[in-house]
Amino acid sequence: MNNQHSERLKAVRAEMGRLNIDAFIVPHEDEYFLEEVPEHNNRLKWLNGFTGTVGVAVVLKETAIIFVDGRYKVQVSEQVDEQQYYFQNLSEFEKHDWLGKALSTKSRIGLDPKLHTFAWYNEFVQACTLYQVTCVDIAKNIIDQCWKDRPHKKSKPVEILADKYHGKPNKIKRTQTGDALKASNVDCAIITSLDSISWLLNLRGRDVPCLPVFFSTAIINKNGDVICFLALENITENIISSFDCGVSFKAEQERDKYFLSLTNQVIQVDPQKVNADTMNVLRNNSNTIVESLDPISLFKAQKNVIELSGFKACHLRDASAVVNFLAWLDDNINSKVFYDEAVLSNKLESYRMKDALYQQPSFETVSASGSNAAMCHYNHKDSIPKLMTNNSIYLIDSGAHYLDGSTDVTRTVAIGKVSSEQKRMATLVLKGHISLAQMKFPYGTTGQHLDAFARQYLWQHGYDYAHGTGHGVGHYLNVHEGPQRIAKFNSEVALLPGMVVSIEPGYYRESEFGIRHENLYFIKESKALAGAEIPMLAFEVLTHVPFDQSLIDNNLLSQSEINWLNNYHQQVYTYISPLVHDTSSINWLRSATMAI
Amino acid sequence: MNNQHSERLKAVRAEMGRLNIDAFIVPHEDEYFLEEVPEHNNRLKWLNGFTGTVGVAVVLKETAIIFVDGRYKVQVSEQVDEQQYYFQNLSEFEKHDWLGKALSTKSRIGLDPKLHTFAWYNEFVQACTLYQVTCVDIAKNIIDQCWKDRPHKKSKPVEILADKYHGKPNKIKRTQTGDALKASNVDCAIITSLDSISWLLNLRGRDVPCLPVFFSTAIINKNGDVICFLALENITENIISSFDCGVSFKAEQERDKYFLSLTNQVIQVDPQKVNADTMNVLRNNSNTIVESLDPISLFKAQKNVIELSGFKACHLRDASAVVNFLAWLDDNINSKVFYDEAVLSNKLESYRMKDALYQQPSFETVSASGSNAAMCHYNHKDSIPKLMTNNSIYLIDSGAHYLDGSTDVTRTVAIGKVSSEQKRMATLVLKGHISLAQMKFPYGTTGQHLDAFARQYLWQHGYDYAHGTGHGVGHYLNVHEGPQRIAKFNSEVALLPGMVVSIEPGYYRESEFGIRHENLYFIKESKALAGAEIPMLAFEVLTHVPFDQSLIDNNLLSQSEINWLNNYHQQVYTYISPLVHDTSSINWLRSATMAI
Repeated sequence: MNNQHSERLKAVRAEMGRLNIDAFIVPHEDEYFLEEVPEHNNRLKWLNGFTGTVGVAVVLKETAIIFVDGRYKVQVSEQVDEQQYYFQNLSEFEKHDWLGKALSTKSRIGLDPKLHTFAWYNEFVQACTLYQVTCVDIAKNIIDQCWKDRPHKKSKPVEILADKYHGKPNKIKRTQTGDALKASNVDCAIITSLDSISWLLNLRGRDVPCLPVFFSTAIINKNGDVICFLALENITENIISSFDCGVSFKAEQERDKYFLSLTNQVIQVDPQKVNADTMNVLRNNSNTIVESLDPISLFKAQKNVIELSGFKACHLRDASAVVNFLAWLDDNINSKVFYDEAVLSNKLESYRMKDALYQQPSFETVSASGSNAAMCHYNHKDSIPKLMTNNSIYLIDSGAHYLDGSTDVTRTVAIGKVSSEQKRMATLVLKGHISLAQMKFPYGTTGQHLDAFARQYLWQHGYDYAHGTGHGVGHYLNVHEGPQRIAKFNSEVALLPGMVVSIEPGYYRESEFGIRHENLYFIKESKALAGAEIPMLAFEVLTHVPFDQSLIDNNLLSQSEINWLNNYHQQVYTYISPLVHDTSSINWLRSATMAI
Repeated sequence: MNNQHSERLKAVRAEMGRLNIDAFIVPHEDEYFLEEVPEHNNRLKWLNGFTGTVGVAVVLKETAIIFVDGRYKVQVSEQVDEQQYYFQNLSEFEKHDWLGKALSTKSRIGLDPKLHTFAWYNEFVQACTLYQVTCVDIAKNIIDQCWKDRPHKKSKPVEILADKYHGKPNKIKRTQTGDALKASNVDCAIITSLDSISWLLNLRGRDVPCLPVFFSTAIINKNGDVICFLALENITENIISSFDCGVSFKAEQERDKYFLSLTNQVIQVDPQKVNADTMNVLRNNSNTIVESLDPISLFKAQKNVIELSGFKACHLRDASAVVNFLAWLDDNINSKVFYDEAVLSNKLESYRMKDALYQQPSFETVSASGSNAAMCHYNHKDSIPKLMTNNSIYLIDSGAHYLDGSTDVTRTVAIGKVSSEQKRMATLVLKGHISLAQMKFPYGTTGQHLDAFARQYLWQHGYDYAHGTGHGVGHYLNVHEGPQRIAKFNSEVALLPGMVVSIEPGYYRESEFGIRHENLYFIKESKALAGAEIPMLAFEVLTHVPFDQSLIDNNLLSQSEINWLNNYHQQVYTYISPLVHDTSSINWLRSATMAI
C-alpha cells in the first residue's frame, strides 16, 4: 500500500513540476462539500489512504502534510505513511499558519478552485498575500491527471418522495423561499447544497453513499421559479412533467453558460456552500453578489408537522430494531459468544432492513470494540474487523434512512466486567447528556451557548472530547444537516422549534476505550410556566433505546439526574415493548429499563 | 426641555436640507468609541436628552428614531420625547432593517465617518447598496454645526503610572507587541484604543470621565518603536524625556500627514476600533491593510503578577469601604431613616475616598431604589434622586479606580420586608452566579460558551436578563475592557489566565424591582486534579462583600450552592474583618457572613 502511495506522490510531484508550483492542496471534499464523498471523487484517499470524513493534504516538493481534526488523531497514524507525511492538526490549516512554516516567500501554491468553498478561498488568498506566496488556480486537477484507474461516476435515477412523507408541496416551498428572497431585496439565489435542492423539489437521489441526494445545482428566482441543472439521463420525463411550469430541469453542462447570462441581478450565494470556481463565474458580470446563508436551509431545518410525525414514527420502529439487536448481543455476551465488528454491524442492519420503509444506512456504522472506540469515527471496513473481547466496552453508532425520516443513535455497551474508572467516565458523559437534554432556553439561543452543558462534568475533572456535541438531522436527507449545530464553534444559528438535533457527548481514552451517549431530540416550545415572562424552547426526545445501566455509577448521579434516567427508561419501555415481539427481547427490555 | 430638543431637531433638519440628505445618523459614541463620552462630544444627549451609554438616533425629514438596547427600554421612554422619536431596539439598527422600513429607494443617508468603526461602516455601505440607498460621508458633522453652546474640550495633563503599580516597563511591552507583529508578518499597527495606549506607555490621563485615559492615537512598529499623537500641551518635557528614543510624541494635527506618508507597508488595524475616516486615510496609499484584533489588547487583558497583586490588594480595601457603607445603611434602615439615592451614592464614595490610592469612581454609580433598579443602568443624576422606601429592594452598582487596580461590585439590599417572589428571583439569579463561578473550563473556552450557566435557572422558569453576564476589567483603566467578555454574542475571545472579569447576572421586573449580583474574578489555572488529562481554568474571586441573606430563599439552593455561599462568606469575614475598625461594622459583618 505504502509503495503505491509513494508512487502516487511521485506522479503528483512530477505534475507539480510541470506546472511550476511548490505545493498542491488536496482536500477530502469534492465540489459538493459533503462529508461522504463518492469513490470516484475521493482524491485524498487515493493519494494516501486516509478514509476519514474531514481532512486535507498538502503535497510539497520534498515532503507532504496531512491535516486532520482531533477525532482522527489515531486513525491517521494507522492509515497514512509517517515516512511521507507530517501529521498536523486541522486548525493549523484553517489558521493558514502552515504557509509561513512550510513555504518560503515567493512560493507558488496550486489548488483546484472547484474543491474549496468561496469563504475559505477568499480567506486563503488574503493569507497568501500576507505570507508573500502566490495562490495559483489549477484548472485541471492534478490528482485527476494522475489517477489512472479512477472509478466511474455512479449516477442513479432521481426519485419522487411521496406527499404523505414530506408534507409540503414543492410549489409552497418555492413560494416561501422566493418570498424570503424578496424580503431581502434579492433577485435570485444559487443553491449548491444538494440536500436543499432535494428538499425543495421533494426529490431524492442515490448519487452519494448514505446521503439520498443527486448531483445538481439550482437557481431559485424571487418569484419562486427554479431551474435545476443535473445529469438529465437520471430524471424521467414522468418526474419532470409532474412539476408545474415554475420548475425546469436543464443539463449540468448548460449551467455555467446560464450563470454567465445573468446580468444586473442581485444574486444571493452562500459563501460556505458555493465553490470558488462557480463564484468566479457569477462575478464575471454586472451582478451584485449578496453573501448569505442558503435561503432554503432554515426552512428545511424546521421540520413541518408531517415530517415530525414521520420522525417520531420511524424512531419507534428504529428503536425496536436496536433493542432487538442489543438483546441478541447481551444474550451472546452471556453465552461468551463474541463476534467481530462487521458481524455486529451487519446484524443490527438486518433488524432495521425488516422495516417496509427502510432505505439505507444514514451513515457508515461505527462498530468499535475496545480500544477501537477511542477513534470516534472508526470504520471497521478500513482494516480487519476486531472481535469483541470480554471485559471491555463496545460502542455502536448507527442509523438508517426510512421514507418517513432518519435516525442516528449511539450506545456504549459493557461486554462482561468494566472497571470503576470506565463506569465513572461513562457516568460523567451521561450527566452531561442529561444536563443538556433538560435545558430550557429562549429564542435566539445557539448551539454555542449550550454546548458546554454537555461537557461541564468532564471539565470539572480535567477531561473533554474533541468533537461537537450535536448536529442537525435531515428528514430522509443528510444525517448531518445545518445550519444549526451544538458545538464550541461555528454554531451561531439559533435553535428553533421543529429542528432535529443530536446530543452526543463522549469520552475517548487513547488505546483503551471510548464512550458516547447519543440521542436525537426535536426542539419545541416548552409548556408555559407559571409566571414565565418569555417563551422557552426545550428538547423532546426521539430516540427510545435504553442506556446500559452496568456502565452507570449511581453514586455520581443527583436525584434529578436519576429521575430523568428513570423517566426516560420508563418511556422507552412503554413505547417500545409493544413493538418487540420476541420474548427474550421483551425480557431484556424490561430489565434494561428498570428504575435505579 | 422637550421644546429645546424640538428646536434642535429643527436645526438639524434645516442643515440636512442644505446638504440634500434624507437622514442623518447620530451615534452616542465619539471618535474614540468609549462608553463614557465627554460632555463636549455627547451629541446624542444634546439632540434628545438620552444619557445611556449605548444608543443611536436617526433623524429623518419628518420623524426620528432612537435605537437602544434592552437595558435602556425604560430609561429611553423617560428621557426622550415620544412625540418626536420612535423607540426601536438596537438590533434593528445593527441588522440595518430600518433602512428598508424608514427610507424609500434612492434616499441619501448622511453620517460622520469619524463616529463609526470601520467594521460597521463597511457593513453599512453594503446594506445601503442592497436597499438601493446612498450613504453620504458628511465631513462637517451636522450636530457640531448646530450646537451653539457646545462645551469646550477639557484636556488634562498626562501622568506617569509608577513602576510598582504596573509591573512591566514600557520597553518590554513594546518589544512584546512588536514581536507579535513580526510573527504575523506585519510592519506596524495603528492603535486607536485609548486604554491600549495608556497601558503600553504606562501613562494615565483624565480626559474622559471615569476612564483614566488621554485622547491620542499611536502607531507601533514591529521593532517596538512607538509614535504617540496627542495634544502636546498635556504632556510635560519631564515625562517625554523619561522614555527612551523608541517612543516619540507628536502633535495630533500631524497624525493624518504621517499616516499618508506610509507607503508599501503591511499595516495592522483593528476594524472594531478604528474609525472609518482614519481607515480612509490609511487606504489612500500602496499599503496592505491587515484587519486584526488590537495587538495590545490581549497582553493588556492578561494581568501580570504585580497587576494581579494590586487587584487583590485594592479589592480588600474596597470591600472594607463597601462593608462600612452596608453596615451604615442597615443601621439606618433599622432606625427607619431613609436617604435618597444621591446621598447613598455619595456616602459610599466617601468611604472609598479615605483610601490613599483612591483616584475616582470607575464608572457612574448606579444607586437605584425600588422600581428604578428595573433600569439596569439607571443614573440618579438624570432626574430627582428617589428616597429609599420601606419594604423594597435597593441596588447599588459601583466601583473605584485605585492606583493599584480597579473595582466594580453590585449588591442588592432588602429594605425592610421583601416578598417571597422577590426572594425567589434574587435566589435564581444567585444560583446562576454560583454556577458560573464554579465552572472549570479548558483553554479555548470563550465567554459565549459560559454565559448560559448564569442564566440557566432563570431560563428554567421563563425569565432572562437583557444584558451580558460579564465584562473584562482594566487595571486602573477602563472598567469595561475587552477583548474578552461573557455574553450571548460578541464574546468569541478565549478566556486566559490573568484576565479579570465580572460575573453579574440580574433580573429586572419593569416598574417593580431589579436584582443584580456582581463580583469580579480573575482567571487562573485550576490545581491539577487526579487523573486530569488537560489543564483547566477556573475563576478566583476578587470581590469580598457579603450577599444580603435576607434576599436568599435557602430552600431553592442545592447543598453545593449552600457550601459555596458559606465558604464565600467565611472568606469575606476572614479577609475583611481585620480591615473594618468600627465595632458596629464588625458586628454587622459577622452577622452578614454567618453560615446558612
